[in-house]
Amino acid sequence: MREIIMAEHAGFCFGVKRAVDAIIDALNDAEDRSEVWTIGLPIHNPQEVDRLKKTGLNVAEDESEIPPGARVLIRAHGEPRCVMESLRAKGAAVTDTTCPFVSRAQKLAESLSREGYSIVLLGDKSHPEIISIMGHADGKVYVAADEAEAAALPRLGRAALISQTTQQEERLARAAAALVPKTEELRVCNTICRATVDRQNAVRSLAGKVDGLVLIGGRTSANTAKLRDIASECGMDVLWVEDSEEIKEARSWFEGRNRIGIAAGASTPEWLINKIKSGIADI
Amino acid sequence: MREIIMAEHAGFCFGVKRAVDAIIDALNDAEDRSEVWTIGLPIHNPQEVDRLKKTGLNVAEDESEIPPGARVLIRAHGEPRCVMESLRAKGAAVTDTTCPFVSRAQKLAESLSREGYSIVLLGDKSHPEIISIMGHADGKVYVAADEAEAAALPRLGRAALISQTTQQEERLARAAAALVPKTEELRVCNTICRATVDRQNAVRSLAGKVDGLVLIGGRTSANTAKLRDIASECGMDVLWVEDSEEIKEARSWFEGRNRIGIAAGASTPEWLINKIKSGIADI
Repeated sequence: MREIIMAEHAGFCFGVKRAVDAIIDALNDAEDRSEVWTIGLPIHNPQEVDRLKKTGLNVAEDESEIPPGARVLIRAHGEPRCVMESLRAKGAAVTDTTCPFVSRAQKLAESLSREGYSIVLLGDKSHPEIISIMGHADGKVYVAADEAEAAALPRLGRAALISQTTQQEERLARAAAALVPKTEELRVCNTICRATVDRQNAVRSLAGKVDGLVLIGGRTSANTAKLRDIASECGMDVLWVEDSEEIKEARSWFEGRNRIGIAAGASTPEWLINKIKSGIADI
Repeated sequence: MREIIMAEHAGFCFGVKRAVDAIIDALNDAEDRSEVWTIGLPIHNPQEVDRLKKTGLNVAEDESEIPPGARVLIRAHGEPRCVMESLRAKGAAVTDTTCPFVSRAQKLAESLSREGYSIVLLGDKSHPEIISIMGHADGKVYVAADEAEAAALPRLGRAALISQTTQQEERLARAAAALVPKTEELRVCNTICRATVDRQNAVRSLAGKVDGLVLIGGRTSANTAKLRDIASECGMDVLWVEDSEEIKEARSWFEGRNRIGIAAGASTPEWLINKIKSGIADI
């Protein structure tokens, strides 16, 4: 009999749950569901996005597609200030479910850039969260993916280092160390969210207790990618899946593995975790 | 013929020179030299201190020894706020030659502690400069000698990391990295002075060009100790001397060494460097 060990913290974090619940509420309340929109995919989980779209959610590529007077839900990653202003200008009814941890990073970028600090964001420059935080800074903003990119920045005088909420603390610490010799003053804002740290620690504590880790999360999910990195660093074999179909396809991966750990990114809904658990039990 | 290669930056820095010049001016101006005082040794160089004492300078162990109405020169390391207040209360004529780089660190400790930041000083807790900076902070102050001590501190919330001006930037960077996971916000104030960085780089650039390094500086000089560490890390054999007498005693050290580098801490006067140069030439 195969044993399944769930990571202590896995799946929807508070911020994602709040954002998804708000979409469902908006769809339930709407007289006309064609008026309920998000800009971009509401979360980095295709299965959950499919479910929301089937319930009537409309997903715009960008804010220019939003029809006047629409009801718009701002996803947990947040939006740049200019997008919020443009939505207000076209009379959209905006429900802002930006994750409070992302809001904090946005506010720090705004206030510190106004105080004259150059802003350095640690994260992925193409990720919506980083784009939303950048869009709140007033002055010079740099994005560094890691300490090497931080070390390659010019001298900065006074700078603030702000982290994508899904980063690892050790990466933030190393990026800070790379910036100290380039700055007179460096304000390191630890904007990594608690849920991220909890999920990362939960993966770490599975090391040595399992013969392999099934990691559930969207392919574009930054926090899931970090969980994969941590699991690999801890010496675990990882099977990253988005859906239960992939469990069947990876049948051979399970051979000889008796204790299977399960972890899931912050954008993975509980129903999907349960479906995958059943899929593993069925092998 | 033995070749002597001087480090590009060596000896008195701007702050020490200013403090020593002020003492000499005060002694020259004084009607009664018994009224001219410093608290503690004015610089960490016994030979220069001897010279100043012979010119009439009085050195008090602490401010309680200062007679009322005395003329007091505050050395480059600065003094805690309470000492400055006590001197003012007893009507001393104070000439403050606190190094401007130390003043900056004192002001940061004062303003950031008032803003609610815990203060972490990177340095030697028994060094007068650290004592003077500590004495300007209003709240919680910790002193960490290195990253290991920084890593052993409790969680700090909002903290400011301020450096003794004679530290190495890499040590400050490593201490910052150790504090990032303990703080929501960490303000790293790079208060290392330019003269320190210049002297350290000058030692580094002697590596490979000399068969040994004569390092001149007081045994209690923090910045000289750092130069010794750097020279050793760069693979240089170091002869640390305070005075030219020691050159004669170390005769055997010079055997087989044809190219001798000379470096000197920020509290080493030029006359002493010249005396030691002659001493080496005489061997």
